[in-house]
Amino acid sequence: MKHKVIASWEEKMQFQIEQPGGFLKADAEELVGGENKGLRPKSLMVSALLGCTGMDVVSLLKKMRAEVDRFELHVEAELTEEHPKFYKKVHVVYSFYGNDLKREKISKSVSLSVERYCGVFEMFRQFAEVSHEINFIDKN
Amino acid sequence: MKHKVIASWEEKMQFQIEQPGGFLKADAEELVGGENKGLRPKSLMVSALLGCTGMDVVSLLKKMRAEVDRFELHVEAELTEEHPKFYKKVHVVYSFYGNDLKREKISKSVSLSVERYCGVFEMFRQFAEVSHEINFIDKN
Repeated sequence: MKHKVIASWEEKMQFQIEQPGGFLKADAEELVGGENKGLRPKSLMVSALLGCTGMDVVSLLKKMRAEVDRFELHVEAELTEEHPKFYKKVHVVYSFYGNDLKREKISKSVSLSVERYCGVFEMFRQFAEVSHEINFIDKN
Repeated sequence: MKHKVIASWEEKMQFQIEQPGGFLKADAEELVGGENKGLRPKSLMVSALLGCTGMDVVSLLKKMRAEVDRFELHVEAELTEEHPKFYKKVHVVYSFYGNDLKREKISKSVSLSVERYCGVFEMFRQFAEVSHEINFIDKN
């Protein structure tokens, strides 16, 4: 399968990018000549990682009948100091909220995504040291 | 330097993602339980690549006084057949439009981004076979 993505330069550092599912606007921060009118390209990589593993987990939780009230995840991604700057250390935190959370099934879902299903995780492992943790916020 | 990105699950396969420069909405295609109401996570990686190298080139062209009328770029990215599916072959096409295009300087800008400055290119090289080409569309 092939994915096609097209970027058109608008002005200054701004690009309109057309990708499967819609459009996005990318811009740089002021410090490097941008106007902060769009998303930063590099951190789109991190958004890709969160979206990919997040969707895996949601669909696995549904299959395992281990639904939760709320689910959030975040990443802290550390860049190298030297050019070309890339992500060298990436830590993903999964947070699940609900009543009587099925901790074992939830942990299993996260492991399956991280180790087996998420293609973006697989790509990140080729250039970064990746790690993750799970938080359970149970109302009971 | 660290980048922080946060994703919040909304419903079904939809996530709201907050990253440097703004928000985006991610969703899966219908085939895998989504509703096509947002961007596909995996191809955000390709958007990252285009945005990163595109901004490099724009700023190098300005420095070299080799501005163009229009600049577009696109990628065809091929996924592996097996899970976890990742990009194994990635081809970037740079297209420059204008009068009396300064071909040598433009080619130099692209090479500098691909080989030296673009961190996303550096990450892609770790998991994919990457290549690129340049098209000049000169009015004269």
